[in-house]
Amino acid sequence: MLPIDAGPASFDAATAVRRDPDGRIVADLDPGWDVGGGVLNGGYLLAVIARAAALDSPHPHPVAVSASYLRATGPGPATLTVTAGPAGRTLAHGSVLLSGTDGPTLSAQVTTATLGADDPLWSAPPPSMPAVADCLGSDGTVAGRPTKEVGLRHRVETRLDPSTGGWLRGAASGEPVMRAWVRLADGREPDPFALILFADVLPPTSWGMGLYGWAPTVQLQVLVRALPAPGWCLVEATAGEISGGWLDEDYRIWDSTGRLVAQSRQLARVPRG
Amino acid sequence: MLPIDAGPASFDAATAVRRDPDGRIVADLDPGWDVGGGVLNGGYLLAVIARAAALDSPHPHPVAVSASYLRATGPGPATLTVTAGPAGRTLAHGSVLLSGTDGPTLSAQVTTATLGADDPLWSAPPPSMPAVADCLGSDGTVAGRPTKEVGLRHRVETRLDPSTGGWLRGAASGEPVMRAWVRLADGREPDPFALILFADVLPPTSWGMGLYGWAPTVQLQVLVRALPAPGWCLVEATAGEISGGWLDEDYRIWDSTGRLVAQSRQLARVPRG
Repeated sequence: MLPIDAGPASFDAATAVRRDPDGRIVADLDPGWDVGGGVLNGGYLLAVIARAAALDSPHPHPVAVSASYLRATGPGPATLTVTAGPAGRTLAHGSVLLSGTDGPTLSAQVTTATLGADDPLWSAPPPSMPAVADCLGSDGTVAGRPTKEVGLRHRVETRLDPSTGGWLRGAASGEPVMRAWVRLADGREPDPFALILFADVLPPTSWGMGLYGWAPTVQLQVLVRALPAPGWCLVEATAGEISGGWLDEDYRIWDSTGRLVAQSRQLARVPRG
Repeated sequence: MLPIDAGPASFDAATAVRRDPDGRIVADLDPGWDVGGGVLNGGYLLAVIARAAALDSPHPHPVAVSASYLRATGPGPATLTVTAGPAGRTLAHGSVLLSGTDGPTLSAQVTTATLGADDPLWSAPPPSMPAVADCLGSDGTVAGRPTKEVGLRHRVETRLDPSTGGWLRGAASGEPVMRAWVRLADGREPDPFALILFADVLPPTSWGMGLYGWAPTVQLQVLVRALPAPGWCLVEATAGEISGGWLDEDYRIWDSTGRLVAQSRQLARVPRG
């Protein structure tokens, strides 16, 4: 296993699933995709789940994935129990349970389909966004202070819209909004599995309110709407409500041509700071 | 069972679950909550699922519910198989499988919690909306023509924003947006279960594009964010992308005080017209 600072480990290798000699679907969850403290990123885990669902499906693309995050998931060997549902010419349903050495940690519904090259009848346009070169990279600090090491930062390149990046220097904008250009650090172009990763890749929107800390995901749904063009993806995350210790994060992702290619929404707990 | 035009059947009775003598959780799915052709509304079914999840949970309120719609579900006896997940002081996870006489039709993840009276740190404001008296009721016609009878229309009162109701007279606005005041016809005030119903209660957003017909739900996630105040709820549904036969419907629901109380997003198939 690579040390956290060994450079961009391959997304495909880190999310690979395979059958073991007993016919079970297994994965080796990569320690390099953590969000600190040995806890793996929720989008990374959901991409592994989507690969398991697609393994025996007649359709190659995850189009709707929703998961309950039962417990924090660490790196190491995992088993993916796939229960196939109805499958047809248009789509196939399935359920996936991800279990680590300590038992189940994620329970998911996955619908797969075959996305084509259709022009949209309707597609929400992207927000205005500065060029990649005019955006802010992450140096691993929050509010001007070094924070715990986060492997995900080395696996995904992120360039924040400066208007939503004030938290980097401790000057939060006061609005729960994050916008960033993102791409895989290993140079691989985006596909539906990478879009699932991107759907949980930004810092919590609550950081825009000055509430710093980890926001554990409770339930996350990702919809993949189109095959993304090569290049940077534009990711916008907003919260609709922060209340009573609960937070939502609503993501929309556009590809380099400006087409809306994915949407997600998660319920999370508000960081304790 | 009430005939479809017998008036407002009780939401509580129609979504009730109970244990049968064998200890199984069962329900009698009410034929009055259909969307035409004997197919029950997706929000109604999800409310029944949420009741099953809450039955043995230490927490009373469904806060995150996501379901794959495996097959269309008709009225009649149903069994709800609940698999409890981790439960704690803040929340409890569970999975629910809804099965009719022909086998499983919905597979869902449900998280329950205990919502309080917290003031939000952040809450997205409602869109501007005409008063209830200035909005449009439904007379059961689409594009000026009588359509198939839909039981749901008699169970939920809907008052459409005229700017999103052009489809009633065959003059679709050209944008996939619906806004309406809604309340239960039986006079019952909204609660988290009613919000789950409301999260799939409007005509498909594609009707705003002149694409009339049923849009079968593939996967639906609902987040309940707060206990709603009494009175009408304001529901806004938009589509982010319509492409390749796929449609999303993104709902936000505000209570009568203007607080955001629920959010949902579904992937559906585009109506054939």
